[in-house]
Amino acid sequence: MATDDLPSRLPVTDRTRHRRLREQGSLERADLNAILDAGFVCHLGVVIDGRPLVVPTVYGRDERQLYVHGSVASRSTAGGLPVCVTVTHVDGLVLARSVFEHGVNYRSAMIHGDARRVTDPEEKLEGLRRLTEHATPGQWSYARRPNRRELAATTVLALSLEEASVKIRTGAPDDGDGPDAALGLWAGVLPLTGIWGAPVPDPALPPGTAVPDHIARRAGTRHG
Amino acid sequence: MATDDLPSRLPVTDRTRHRRLREQGSLERADLNAILDAGFVCHLGVVIDGRPLVVPTVYGRDERQLYVHGSVASRSTAGGLPVCVTVTHVDGLVLARSVFEHGVNYRSAMIHGDARRVTDPEEKLEGLRRLTEHATPGQWSYARRPNRRELAATTVLALSLEEASVKIRTGAPDDGDGPDAALGLWAGVLPLTGIWGAPVPDPALPPGTAVPDHIARRAGTRHG
Repeated sequence: MATDDLPSRLPVTDRTRHRRLREQGSLERADLNAILDAGFVCHLGVVIDGRPLVVPTVYGRDERQLYVHGSVASRSTAGGLPVCVTVTHVDGLVLARSVFEHGVNYRSAMIHGDARRVTDPEEKLEGLRRLTEHATPGQWSYARRPNRRELAATTVLALSLEEASVKIRTGAPDDGDGPDAALGLWAGVLPLTGIWGAPVPDPALPPGTAVPDHIARRAGTRHG
Repeated sequence: MATDDLPSRLPVTDRTRHRRLREQGSLERADLNAILDAGFVCHLGVVIDGRPLVVPTVYGRDERQLYVHGSVASRSTAGGLPVCVTVTHVDGLVLARSVFEHGVNYRSAMIHGDARRVTDPEEKLEGLRRLTEHATPGQWSYARRPNRRELAATTVLALSLEEASVKIRTGAPDDGDGPDAALGLWAGVLPLTGIWGAPVPDPALPPGTAVPDHIARRAGTRHG
């Protein structure tokens, strides 16, 4: 794996050029990383028999690539698999005066490339570590790690973070200074937030099994 | 548009047959509808130049078809557009004793078909009404509806709800009765819930503009 840093500005390619709503596009790699780090479920798009297939799955990352839990890859041939991985956080409904100006406040990252099936056991273990720690920081050192058989039964895809498109919309509706402002209607944003709940113990646990701190302390905090 | 009811059981096709984790698949149309009704953002997958593209967008539905806000269709030719529309609700992290058994509690619907670009103005208006009411019930009768120019500038796709795949995972981890139970580790679920916040007024509003009841009453309620 190369060790050079990826550029802090995202490259503009035919696939990542923002065609609409240009004001919502960001070319900052820091924005891409922040969006990826705020979630753990992505939507992985592949082409099967010429048709699109979009499956939700989990991911993690390092500085250069995304690791994706990729059972869908079992339907494809080996080698580079053309994928589009999209991560979206919905932050609220934008309720304008006119239906036409309605929208969503969101942060979304779309990563394009050819995914590589990770075959080296050490890299696969590292990918699973990234996936696990991404969803639940602290869990890799707490839970039992995969053995050789489990590792062989797991598909991990790696995708370069080189080519990505980022879109962000924040703030109030856009029709506050147009003719519709005279309608006297309420307009604004209805925010939406993900909240972690209190841990629910497996009923099979012996009574009194302590919730580890890295899990307990997330309860009540914001996700996304 | 046909008026026959779609069958209450979803058909099993090459695309919707559950290949893995069969216990998570549902063939109940009621489950499909419940998943669609619990959200308003989908991930729309299309094939552009042989490669997948996955974009987040908003949707609504009637009994027979999904309406999708589809600016991505402007990149495609007219006529039937092969799409896969996926709606996913993440309900929590499944934290098992072993990393291998980790997972996500979720509800996901994947709809396959050829999307049709809605051209008839009346149907397009009806599609936008469904979209608007789906995201914010009560808003279609409150906000200013699209005029002819706005309607022409909006792309709405319609997709039959005939062919769909539903997956649901709930409950505790699966390794409570295996050898890993002896490890003495905590295991369970960390729930994740979407919560609507208090409405944030557009700063451009005249002071004292009342929040309409259909928006105000959502604050603090659960989404998803």
